[in-house]
Order: sequence, then C-alpha cells, then structure tokens
Amino acid sequence: MAGKEAKGADGGAKGGSNKGKKKEVKKETGLGLTNKKDENFGEWYSEVVVSGEMIEYYDISGCYVLRPWAMSIWEIMQEFFDAEIKKMKIKNCYFPLFVSPGVLEKEKDHVEGFAPEVAWVTKSGKSDLEVPIAIRPTSETVMYPYYSKWIRGHRDLPLRLNQWCNVVRWEFSNPTPFIRSREFLWQEGHTAFATKEEADAEVLDILELYRRIYEEFLAVPVIKGKKSELEKFAGGLYTTTVEAFIPNTGRGIQGATSHCLGQNFAKMFEINFENEKGEKAMVWQNSWAYTTRTIGVMIMVHGDDKGLVLPPKVAATQVIVIPVPYKDADTQGILDACAATVKTLSESGIRAEADFRDNYSPGWKYSHWEMKGIPLRIEIGPKDLANKQVRVVRRDNSAKSDIPMDSLVEKVREVLDEIQQNLFSVAKQKKEACIKVVKTWEEFLEALSQKKLILAPWCDEEEVEKSVKERTKGEMGAVKTLCSPFDQPELPEGTLCFASGKPAKKWSYWGRSY
Amino acid sequence: MAGKEAKGADGGAKGGSNKGKKKEVKKETGLGLTNKKDENFGEWYSEVVVSGEMIEYYDISGCYVLRPWAMSIWEIMQEFFDAEIKKMKIKNCYFPLFVSPGVLEKEKDHVEGFAPEVAWVTKSGKSDLEVPIAIRPTSETVMYPYYSKWIRGHRDLPLRLNQWCNVVRWEFSNPTPFIRSREFLWQEGHTAFATKEEADAEVLDILELYRRIYEEFLAVPVIKGKKSELEKFAGGLYTTTVEAFIPNTGRGIQGATSHCLGQNFAKMFEINFENEKGEKAMVWQNSWAYTTRTIGVMIMVHGDDKGLVLPPKVAATQVIVIPVPYKDADTQGILDACAATVKTLSESGIRAEADFRDNYSPGWKYSHWEMKGIPLRIEIGPKDLANKQVRVVRRDNSAKSDIPMDSLVEKVREVLDEIQQNLFSVAKQKKEACIKVVKTWEEFLEALSQKKLILAPWCDEEEVEKSVKERTKGEMGAVKTLCSPFDQPELPEGTLCFASGKPAKKWSYWGRSY
Repeated sequence: MAGKEAKGADGGAKGGSNKGKKKEVKKETGLGLTNKKDENFGEWYSEVVVSGEMIEYYDISGCYVLRPWAMSIWEIMQEFFDAEIKKMKIKNCYFPLFVSPGVLEKEKDHVEGFAPEVAWVTKSGKSDLEVPIAIRPTSETVMYPYYSKWIRGHRDLPLRLNQWCNVVRWEFSNPTPFIRSREFLWQEGHTAFATKEEADAEVLDILELYRRIYEEFLAVPVIKGKKSELEKFAGGLYTTTVEAFIPNTGRGIQGATSHCLGQNFAKMFEINFENEKGEKAMVWQNSWAYTTRTIGVMIMVHGDDKGLVLPPKVAATQVIVIPVPYKDADTQGILDACAATVKTLSESGIRAEADFRDNYSPGWKYSHWEMKGIPLRIEIGPKDLANKQVRVVRRDNSAKSDIPMDSLVEKVREVLDEIQQNLFSVAKQKKEACIKVVKTWEEFLEALSQKKLILAPWCDEEEVEKSVKERTKGEMGAVKTLCSPFDQPELPEGTLCFASGKPAKKWSYWGRSY
Repeated sequence: MAGKEAKGADGGAKGGSNKGKKKEVKKETGLGLTNKKDENFGEWYSEVVVSGEMIEYYDISGCYVLRPWAMSIWEIMQEFFDAEIKKMKIKNCYFPLFVSPGVLEKEKDHVEGFAPEVAWVTKSGKSDLEVPIAIRPTSETVMYPYYSKWIRGHRDLPLRLNQWCNVVRWEFSNPTPFIRSREFLWQEGHTAFATKEEADAEVLDILELYRRIYEEFLAVPVIKGKKSELEKFAGGLYTTTVEAFIPNTGRGIQGATSHCLGQNFAKMFEINFENEKGEKAMVWQNSWAYTTRTIGVMIMVHGDDKGLVLPPKVAATQVIVIPVPYKDADTQGILDACAATVKTLSESGIRAEADFRDNYSPGWKYSHWEMKGIPLRIEIGPKDLANKQVRVVRRDNSAKSDIPMDSLVEKVREVLDEIQQNLFSVAKQKKEACIKVVKTWEEFLEALSQKKLILAPWCDEEEVEKSVKERTKGEMGAVKTLCSPFDQPELPEGTLCFASGKPAKKWSYWGRSY
C-alpha cells in the first residue's frame, strides 16, 4: 500500500540527521532501491521519493519537505497554469490562512465535509486565544463574504480570482508524500458569473488546463468526467475531474477538480447583483484547484526500479553531461567538451548540467542521475572526443545512441521530444490495458481482484453507490465511483446497472482510490 | 499613528458586507479620501489601502486580504528577485508550515526572540493533538536539521535554498496593513558556506537586491547599514538592513534584512562538513528575507490626498485610457481610438487598459484611477480625435501634455520613465531634508521632536542603546538605532557619543520606528 510511510521516517530531527549519515555511507558504497515497484509498491514509493531527492520526511507526520528537485517541477507547472489563467483575465490575490469559526461554519454541507480535518489555533505565545481560529482547509468561506461586498451590479461580473497558497487538512489516514499530506500547496480559483452558462463554460476551460498539466507536462493520461453526487465537492452543484490510474495498485486517483458551485454559496453569503434589467439576481460560482499531488501521480506512473523517471517538460535538468575519462586519456579535453556541450545546450534553452565531481566514478554518477530521473544522460569519453560525437542514453527506455557534435542541439531536442511522447504513450497503453468493462456484479468483483479500472453501466443512484461501498469495504478500502466519463460509450437501451439491476443511466468508472 | 486600524474594520464578515454597501453608495455619489496625509497619517493610510483596492480588512485582527491590485505588485517584485537569485544558483524549496516544539526551541536566543509571537495548533477536528504544534514565525529551526543531514563534505557546499511562503507572528501591538500583520508573505533564503568570506559576500549581494527592489522598483530610497547588537536577528552574528523612512511620522522602517548567522545555528544543529584537508569543520550560514511590508512602505512614501501613487515599474496597469465623449461627438470613433491606443501600447509591452464603463462619468473615472494610483492617464475626446493626439496626465505631479498618436509608444514610455525617476527623486529629497546630524543629547531631543531622521556619533555600547530607549519611551514609542550606515561620514578623532559622552566609534541612525 502506498499509504504506509517508510520505517523510521517519522523520527525527530535528530533521528533524521542520523538517518542521513547512514544514507551517506550507502551512497558511497552503492546505489539503487531496496524495494521493487512491482513487488512492494508502497515501500518502493516511499523510498523513491526520498532517494530521488524530491522529499524528506518530517518530524510531524503527514508533513514533508519539498526539495528543489520537486519544487522546480511545481514551478514549471505553475508558470504554465498562471499564464493561461491570466490570459482568461483571472487575477491573483491572497486571502488569510486563518478563518474564524463563524465564517467557516456558514455553509452547512461544506463545513460537514471539512470539519473533521480542520486544524485549530488556540494559543499564541503562552496565552489562550479568546476564540479558536481555524486554518483554511480551502477558502470558499474565507473569500465569499468579500464577493458579497465587491459584487453589486452586472458590470462587476465576472469576478475571477485565484490564489497560490498552502492549505491544511489534518487527515489521519495513510499520509503519503505528495498524494495525501496534511499541508499541501495548491492554487484555488474562485469565480462568480451572472449566468450559469458562463460558469459551466469556465468549469470545462479549467478542466482542460488540468488535462494539459497531466498529459502534456507530466505525461500522465487522465480521464475527464463528472463526479457522482456522493463524491462531488461538499456544498457544490457538480464536480468535474481529471482522474488518473495507478496500474500497480489498481487504484484510481483524483487528479484535479473543477467545481460548479451553483448558487448555494451565493445564497449563504448573499452574493447578489443587479442585472441588466435592474432586477436583483444571485451569482453562479465555480471553484477549482490542483495540488502538489500532481507530482506524486507522475512519480507513481513513470518511476521504475532504478528510481524516478521525469518527463523532460517538467525536469529542472533535462540533460546531465558526465565526463568519462580513462587513464592516459586527454582528461582536460574531455572536461572541456563536457562544459562546451552544456553551454551549447543551455544557450538553446535546453536545461543541461555537467557532473564534474571528482570523488565519484562515472558508473556511480549514472546510477545517481537515473535515481533522480534525469530524462537524458550524455557521456563523453576519449572515443567520443576523437569521433566528435557524444553518447546519449535515454532514461525512459535505456536506449543508447551517438550524436555528432555538430547536430547536438537538434538531435537532443528530438530525443527529449521522443521521451516526452514515449512516456505518455507507454502510460496510456498501460492504463488502457487495465480498463475492464463489466456488466454484472460477478464480473465487477473479478475485475476488482485483478486490479482493473472498471467501467460499468450504472443507475446513477446515490443509495446504490453507498451499497457498493458497503459491500466492498475491507482491508483494501471500499470501492467508489471515480467519475462518469464525458466520453461515454454507447449505452444500448435495456442495459442494466451492474450493481442494482435497475435500468442503467450512464457508464461510470469504479475502483478503489487514493 | 499608522498603527491604528480604521474604525469598525475588525467587524465580522457580515459587518464587512454592510460596510461594502455603504461604500458603494459613496462610490456612486463622489470619491475622495476623508483623511489627509499630513493631518492624520494613520487614518489616511488605513483609508487609502482600502479605497485604493489594495486591502480589505478581515474579521481576524491583524490579518488582511491582499486584493489583485496589491498582489500584482508582489508578483512583479517576485519575478525580479526570483530570477536574480536563480542566477546566483539559489534554488527554491518548500518546508512545512508546522514546527514541533522540540525543534523550535533548539536555539535559545532565537526562540526567545520569537516565542511570545508563536501561534500554536492544539486541536484537529474535535480532538486534542498529543503535542501542540507551532506555526513557523521563520524557518531557521525548521530547515537546519536537514542542512545537517544534507551537508557532509565540502562538495555539498554552498547549499543555497529559498522559499516563498507565508509566516505567522501573532503580535498584539498595532496591526497595520502590510506593515505589521499577523500573517504575511515573504521569501526566506537560507544558505550555508564553507567559509565566512563567502557568507559575508552573499549577505551584501542579497542586500543589494533588496536595495534595488526598494529603489528601482518601488522608487523608495533606502539606507544600507548594519543593525546594532540589540537590534540584530535573534541568534545571528550580524544583521544588515535596508532602512526606509516615513517623513510624515518621522519613523524609520526596517525594509528588509540580510543576516549572517555565523556558526551559531551550525553548532546547535550540528551542521558539519569535511573540508578539503579532510578535517571536520562547521558551516557559515546566512538567512535573508523581504516581505509584503515593502508594499506598505511604498504606499506610505508616495501616496497623497488623492490616493495611491504607484511607480510604473510595479503597477499592474501603467496606463488607463478613458474615453471622453461629448454630446453629438463621434462616440464610436472615440471608443475605437481608445481601444486602438490600448492595443498599440499593449503590443509594445506597456501595461494599458481602457475604462469603457458607461455608468460612470469621465470625471468619476479620473478620480477612481487616481485613487488607485495609476501612473498615467490617457484621455481621448473629440478634439484629440480631430488632432490625432491623446491627452496624457501624470499621477505623480498632475502634469498634462498632448502626445501625437504617431509617437504614442515612444512618448508614453518616456513619460513612464520620468514618473519612475521623479517619484524616486522627490522621495529622496524629502528623506534627505529630514536627516539631522546631532552631537549632543539636547540636539537629539530637539531633532526627535521635529520628526527628524537622526544621525549621531555613538559609542556602540548595548547598555547605552538600552538607556536611550528607556529615556525616550512614552506615548510615541522608544527611540532605537535604525542602522549604522555603510556609508559613514568622517568621524574626527575625539568625537563623543551623543548619549553617553564616551568616545564615539561610529555614526548611527536613530529614530522611532515601525
């Protein structure tokens, strides 16, 4: 199970320090993961995020240190998404971390969804606060009192704001780096429109950006769809989602969600406006978010027994150049060629670095950078120097080839594009191989035992989803709907729900999930 | 006093909403601030940050909503600073918001400096936490256990990390938007070097970036200098600072600080490395930060009785284009010319918008955008259309001129540069006019009563600074050293300390401060 943390990971700071000392020794005597992705996935994941230098475990359970290697991935996605939403005239703002209880509790369904996970500040220094203050688990109730203030007439609409921030959800089940952490980074967009049509359209525009983050940047295939009533955002009207799937565990994972909140919050927070006819009307609202979870999904999908595998588009360093000097070789010439290679690539906008450390062997460096998932390795030895070429080795499929120095940039760019494409294709094939269409409860149980991503005709009744959850709960966790895909296969008349036997209304993906 | 919040500002969300309704009425019946900068500065400030749409007061005292108009300034500075530190090979990361008590309390001087302001989480949902958890007031103790883990040998140095995040200091004195808030945004850099020389050099490199943020972006003159022992960072070796000055209140304000931590934290957190000779050594560390306070200083320095005055370099919108249609005029022609003007400017990288709202008069719009501090206003009326020109009006000095359409971009760019320069020059003149050199206690008291920025010869003894604080404390707050400027005037032999009469060792700036 991915949820389990590495042994000893929750030790104190001192413990962390000792662990480090142990690791260092290991580092110098040999590299490699002790766990295998196919054998014990949870342990493999816990190990790869640390050995790949993405994460350090922290002395507070469920909190993690995001190291530069992870942070740079977040920043690359942020740069893309931030520019896209600014094109849509969405503006950034920053609302407080703290929420007063009265405001937090204003929308009933919403607060019920979040209340058990809310962290409360009750003291400052040695004094008790007069009233406990909540830390935002999300900012609907923080922001909407101001929407009520700022929105008066139709000319104030749409109001489209976003913030990049941290939120806290004090969950107790299975903390997992990136995937389920008590504090995480995200963006949260909060928008208000005069009409439902505009809100509906934005929900999908944003969902498409989320799809692009997963598919174009992280090379992770996702399914666009709608959440069931049971699984939708607490207090909202409907929730759309991009769902990813982890073949190794047979679990779905919610990638990012774009919610239409309808007019429910508008009612509670009195967000009204005078429309063009001079009548009082209520706004239609959306909220949408993606989180650092994206990075975890990417690691789970692409990583292998040698470590991380990063798609070139999000890798802080896309190419690592490693000198391979032999005895009696022209070492200086090789080092110079490495430096020149980095310079040429960098000047063309390819993110390249050289590893000139003299206390590690080339072989150690290969393993080290494989562990970190660098998309492409360039080796330069005496033979390469003589032949005016470099040796390139792909991280995704270990393929090796020689590239003439004089077509370096062009070829490297080609290979990086191929890696990006290949990672996506392979992941997509694997995912599609896991999809199993079932029509009956028996088929459903069989597919579940085979870790399939199950597509089944469903009557779309809440009670039926609850009963499926009830009937499947156990050690592995209950099965629920992942989403009802926008891309619906044909549903012949008379098709029955796999679970209830009632007439089916739609196809839905089902599975255990993170 | 700037510290006082606007009346009723701390009302609940509901109250906030009502206030909005009141404001809206005012908005439609007339604009303008009710307070004057020279008459009641504190009230003026509280009013201008809200009316200029930078801030909304929040229902938790000391927390504020940063509206897009403020956030975009933060983002522009962030883009500059982030690119500069990346050039210096400093990498971004993200450490948790939460700190366990044991780690927080590890460095004694440091924790003493922050303990009274620490907010504590003691509950999640309805359950008490086993151990209370602190919210970071700064991240030295959060990060350094990992520095101890990551740093082994001299090849791991320098280690240079930065994070953009929120921190919480639960202060009870005088919450003021941007200037003193319980949660604020900042960057915090934390670096470790093999030698003191490298650390010393970085302290100044970063301080220079802070100077550039103030002087080149915010057009606010600052004094670079060193903090006294009493005023330095808790637990550090020495603190350098860029100090700004608010003439209206005669108060200094710490703009941003770059600290050399020496080896104190290294000792506490055991951050050791093997040097090139194979000997065990301790690292030298720095930490440095600037915060959203920068925006408050800029508002205090440049704002006037009409509202905010934004330097062009940080204004989200640099130019507002306002159509001035008259009866019987070619309204469509005017609107088209406005749109074309925005298009031309935008395509040249000038941030321009048009205000086409049809329910406000041009005069109302002028006031509105003056309140928001837009650097340049362009008016286009029938006469301008006929003459193929636009009328431009500067926010900083109200100067008006006509610009031929065919040299629009060139001239607008020129004027924006002039505004940026002029804001800085005027602020610098005002600040310099406030500097008063004193040699005796009597001169010191007189200068203080005249709200001067006092430069005095000082013996540099901690006890003397304490005694000055003691002797000046009262309603207005005690006087302390602001900094000892790097740019030291000559100190003739035999010069005595203004406060103790002992031989003076340096010149120091003194004053009340924020």
